[in-house]
Amino acid sequence: MPATGTPWIKIVSLDPPSLQNNTADADRLISVLKEDLQTDQIDIDLDLLKQLPGLLRKWEYRVRCIVFKDRHRWLLTGITEAADTGPIAGLAVDLGTTRVVLRLVDLVTGDTLAESAFDNPQDAVGPDILARIHYAEKDGGLDRLNQLIVGGLNRKIASLCATIKIDPQNIYALAVAGNTTMTHLFMGLSPRWIIREPYIPVVNKPPVVKAGTLGIQLNPNARALIFPNIGSYFGGDLIAGILYAEIDKKEETAILVDVGTNAEVVLGNRNWLIACAGAAGPALEGGVTRMGMTAGPGVIDKLAIDPDTREFKIHTIEEKPPRGICGSGVIDLAAQLFLGGMIDIRGKFLPAECGSRLNEIDGLLHLTVVPSDQSGTGSDLTISQADVDSLIRSKAAMYTILETITASVGMALKDLSRFYVAGTFGAFIDPRSAITIGMLPDLPLESYKSLGNSSLGGATLALTSVDCLEEMDRIRDRITYLELNVNQDFMNRFSAAKFLPHTNLALFPSADMNRKSKE
Amino acid sequence: MPATGTPWIKIVSLDPPSLQNNTADADRLISVLKEDLQTDQIDIDLDLLKQLPGLLRKWEYRVRCIVFKDRHRWLLTGITEAADTGPIAGLAVDLGTTRVVLRLVDLVTGDTLAESAFDNPQDAVGPDILARIHYAEKDGGLDRLNQLIVGGLNRKIASLCATIKIDPQNIYALAVAGNTTMTHLFMGLSPRWIIREPYIPVVNKPPVVKAGTLGIQLNPNARALIFPNIGSYFGGDLIAGILYAEIDKKEETAILVDVGTNAEVVLGNRNWLIACAGAAGPALEGGVTRMGMTAGPGVIDKLAIDPDTREFKIHTIEEKPPRGICGSGVIDLAAQLFLGGMIDIRGKFLPAECGSRLNEIDGLLHLTVVPSDQSGTGSDLTISQADVDSLIRSKAAMYTILETITASVGMALKDLSRFYVAGTFGAFIDPRSAITIGMLPDLPLESYKSLGNSSLGGATLALTSVDCLEEMDRIRDRITYLELNVNQDFMNRFSAAKFLPHTNLALFPSADMNRKSKE
Repeated sequence: MPATGTPWIKIVSLDPPSLQNNTADADRLISVLKEDLQTDQIDIDLDLLKQLPGLLRKWEYRVRCIVFKDRHRWLLTGITEAADTGPIAGLAVDLGTTRVVLRLVDLVTGDTLAESAFDNPQDAVGPDILARIHYAEKDGGLDRLNQLIVGGLNRKIASLCATIKIDPQNIYALAVAGNTTMTHLFMGLSPRWIIREPYIPVVNKPPVVKAGTLGIQLNPNARALIFPNIGSYFGGDLIAGILYAEIDKKEETAILVDVGTNAEVVLGNRNWLIACAGAAGPALEGGVTRMGMTAGPGVIDKLAIDPDTREFKIHTIEEKPPRGICGSGVIDLAAQLFLGGMIDIRGKFLPAECGSRLNEIDGLLHLTVVPSDQSGTGSDLTISQADVDSLIRSKAAMYTILETITASVGMALKDLSRFYVAGTFGAFIDPRSAITIGMLPDLPLESYKSLGNSSLGGATLALTSVDCLEEMDRIRDRITYLELNVNQDFMNRFSAAKFLPHTNLALFPSADMNRKSKE
Repeated sequence: MPATGTPWIKIVSLDPPSLQNNTADADRLISVLKEDLQTDQIDIDLDLLKQLPGLLRKWEYRVRCIVFKDRHRWLLTGITEAADTGPIAGLAVDLGTTRVVLRLVDLVTGDTLAESAFDNPQDAVGPDILARIHYAEKDGGLDRLNQLIVGGLNRKIASLCATIKIDPQNIYALAVAGNTTMTHLFMGLSPRWIIREPYIPVVNKPPVVKAGTLGIQLNPNARALIFPNIGSYFGGDLIAGILYAEIDKKEETAILVDVGTNAEVVLGNRNWLIACAGAAGPALEGGVTRMGMTAGPGVIDKLAIDPDTREFKIHTIEEKPPRGICGSGVIDLAAQLFLGGMIDIRGKFLPAECGSRLNEIDGLLHLTVVPSDQSGTGSDLTISQADVDSLIRSKAAMYTILETITASVGMALKDLSRFYVAGTFGAFIDPRSAITIGMLPDLPLESYKSLGNSSLGGATLALTSVDCLEEMDRIRDRITYLELNVNQDFMNRFSAAKFLPHTNLALFPSADMNRKSKE
């Protein structure tokens, strides 16, 4: 009695009941699925059980089954007529603090059916994790935060389904990757102890529950898989990233960096995994400069300075008039200022080289990036010495974190064969610029790979790969979490990294050469 | 980190969180339980997860855990303070067609806390299975039947808890044993196909669900275990009986007989199990004679006839004035009439021996068992020739079923070392009388053992023994179900058994001797 289809969809033909074969409806169906799935445990929900006798008879014992794999058992979550080719979908969610991204996946083919995103409505309560955690401790605060995200998801699910004309009832699985706080708020779990020493989440490996238990309106039997976390500061989004980059499967040692307010770093291969997280400074997500902002229309994301004319060539998102600069733009700017000799190896403006672009405002040197007559705001877009100093501290912190985690396993950064950069930061950053300022190590450019939304990518994998839940648990359990102690060693590394590109130029042969060529 | 207590109750002390040990609350608790229970899967419900951080901190990481074992995983269903010695209870239910019996069990000690019973309120719809199945097919019929039993149980649970002053919230597990139709109606599953060839239940092995999913008001995380069935006519009550009698565990071959409208029989030992069910006739449950009734106050349950004076010595339940006779009384009566020479080997009244007790009413011979001046009804309590004939057919059917199932495995009835008689019938019947009339085989009296309410006994075991669910599944899967074909062989056996005690007196040496001594 072979069944056909992808791992989650099984088309089965049952022997109709007879006096010689009078097994019950559910057990008859399950025994065929057990054989097909090579498992000895398949559970079925009571409400599906109630419909089974009518449906099996109506469809003459030929049915399409939708299954789901929990940690130690399979679940039958739905059945349709065997010949039904209607959609059977899964929903992958990247549950970001700022932005939530949804992807509807066809569970038959694994193809993407639709994608959409919305701003996390919890922003109404507070823009960052800390503000939301404090709000959650107020009376009714946790409930409100929970309802904001659940309500937002339900509205987005409804509209996303409407655009491709499917019923949310056809969604049988949900996979959610997010940081530890966002997943806690989504499950209605108190984040109170996440920010208090010793920083304890309620749960590391959330149970698989019905989506309806979480208030998410999909098929009543749809199951929700929420990515596990390593701890308060290393969430399921990172586990999703590892899964997506397949770091845990490869012989070669790779590193994955996700930069937000924190830099979260994973280093490893199929034999071992080590992770750490540390404050790399807000410079890298656009929060540091007065002109800094997150990526959006009119934001400078690329910048070059002509070495001869010192003309600034800027590129803005959607090529709108410039309104500000994002992380990748700031890194380009610093790299270009350095290569152009307008800042020294400490990042200080060289007035003789900057010329009229440099002005003192309130006693602080400011470099005009875009003069008011070319900007989208009507004012000069400037970067101050303090902004550059801050960026240098951020890039030094980042490099120190990378050096520390690599050294902790007895490796050097140059030994890495693959460097993954996750998220928006990874999508926009020019590795050349990052190497030039010594934020990222001086590896061959082809070693760098932008992962895009690896959190969403991992969540999508969880919907399409059958052993994903086991794999993510295994990843979680295998990761050694390295506490970054700000000890003398760390401070020495940090001090050495506070130069462009680094005190030890031998670590940056290519950057060194570029700079030399300008001199 | 050893935990103490019975299989379901674990008192654990957790290492409090620290920077060196910052596992999440749930995972910290579960890892200790996993070690204690030697398992790699323990699930926890979302609502308990929500309470966990507050409770663990309040109780300083010393807690009493209530666990439950599903088929392939353990579940954490509740926690209390470690020092809490308040009740943690389980509820065993014998879900009978006529009568429902509840037993509250202390999950710490395994002791019975309280017992109670009530008439199955589905009786309002119909007294028997068939009537209820037909009713279930009407609009709203299944829902009503389901609500009747669920509502009845909830009311009884509330009153039972009130008598011993515990809160139903303290009940964390429910085990229900009943016939296939009763368990289907309890779960809200349609019994429609149970009575239609080829007689297919919705489910053989019901899933473990939350009691609340079934509408039963216990602790919100309480799990409900419903005994599996072999098919439409061999239910979980019998599986409970096998479990309770431990037939599947012993080297010696035993037989278990449960007599209601059907006689349900299991034969086996730890190596094999075979079962069958057949109509043994209603005589044995008191439904055959006009004076017959189920056991209750004033019902004749024992009867002896003085061999010299032919005086009838009757015993009634609660020693109230006689109002009728139950199955065990009828069997005593037939045995005594036979031993006293008042009926012949075909069961026909012998007028010369019966004397004035024998009268013709409406052309049919009736024997007065209790004259009107001694009866509780004011009328004569009589038994007619038709009643005796019916009893003889019933007893012959029973003996034939026993002979057939035993012969099917190449054994003779005399080879059985243990004969269990279940239910009310088993509790009241005098094996001597049953042997005398040839209903039960002529085994040494010490082979016979009344099991009492083995359905309730099995359900109780399920609440107190840790591997019970696996064992009942194993029993279910191992049983070979023997279809009783009414073929020539069967009819030949039946004809031979329609004599008192049997055509072949060699099968009944002791009965034969008793009778001879009277002649």
